[in-house]
Amino acid sequence: MTGMLEPRGGWEARQCSIAKALDVVSTRTAFLILREAHYGATRFDEFAERAGASEPVTAARLRELVAAGLLVKEPYKEPGQRTRHAYRLTEKGHELLPALVALMQWGDRWEAQDGGPVRLDHAGCGARVRAELRCEAGHRVDGGELELAYNRRA
Amino acid sequence: MTGMLEPRGGWEARQCSIAKALDVVSTRTAFLILREAHYGATRFDEFAERAGASEPVTAARLRELVAAGLLVKEPYKEPGQRTRHAYRLTEKGHELLPALVALMQWGDRWEAQDGGPVRLDHAGCGARVRAELRCEAGHRVDGGELELAYNRRA
Repeated sequence: MTGMLEPRGGWEARQCSIAKALDVVSTRTAFLILREAHYGATRFDEFAERAGASEPVTAARLRELVAAGLLVKEPYKEPGQRTRHAYRLTEKGHELLPALVALMQWGDRWEAQDGGPVRLDHAGCGARVRAELRCEAGHRVDGGELELAYNRRA
Repeated sequence: MTGMLEPRGGWEARQCSIAKALDVVSTRTAFLILREAHYGATRFDEFAERAGASEPVTAARLRELVAAGLLVKEPYKEPGQRTRHAYRLTEKGHELLPALVALMQWGDRWEAQDGGPVRLDHAGCGARVRAELRCEAGHRVDGGELELAYNRRA
């Protein structure tokens, strides 16, 4: 990456959108709940079990994700049962998918023994799916070809 | 995403590579230190200041990132000064860049007031850079076109 440290005049770490994203999804459990939502989970029990989190922790993270607008909570009722709630991804939640896929492929490559347990394929053509950096002209971009610029000066 | 919940027999949340990635980079400060490393920071003071973290927290996170192999710690000495250490990204650390960019663009879109403070351009052609999902055949992949498959059954 070039253009990195200078000009630092316009730079404030707190304004960074990575920091803002992490303010919203700041815990491991929040990421794992969102992963499960992308995999199709909607019920409280599914989230707790699959994220491997306690009920109070799951409840707290779901509440935060609803408050932050990544999930919506909808009542539903099965015959003879009391009303329960389902959690569904909003557009804001859906758009976190590239970040989740990027984390998954990094974990597959660097932390898993055997390429990881899960594979993502393109339903259209069957080829493996990856998160990658591309410019709007369609070129694949390597880390060394990134240029950092400031949208505005403080 | 399709093929999500079934078969669940082969599925163990703990084996997920997202969980493994988050075991390594599990805190907001760890992400922000890695962000600064990608922006070119190498010195302890730079990391502490720009990640907005205390010295003990910065020291702990740097130690963990070195232990996990994302950063290497190298001694250097300026004339008349005592030996200090620089932290540089390894290949493993570099490869987290798509995840950081994906988080940044999500934050730019959903949490920033005005598109975010920083812009990433392709040094080759000047066009804006984005993290996106593509299959190996080169198609852009939308969340709805992802098919989840298991690499192996438990």
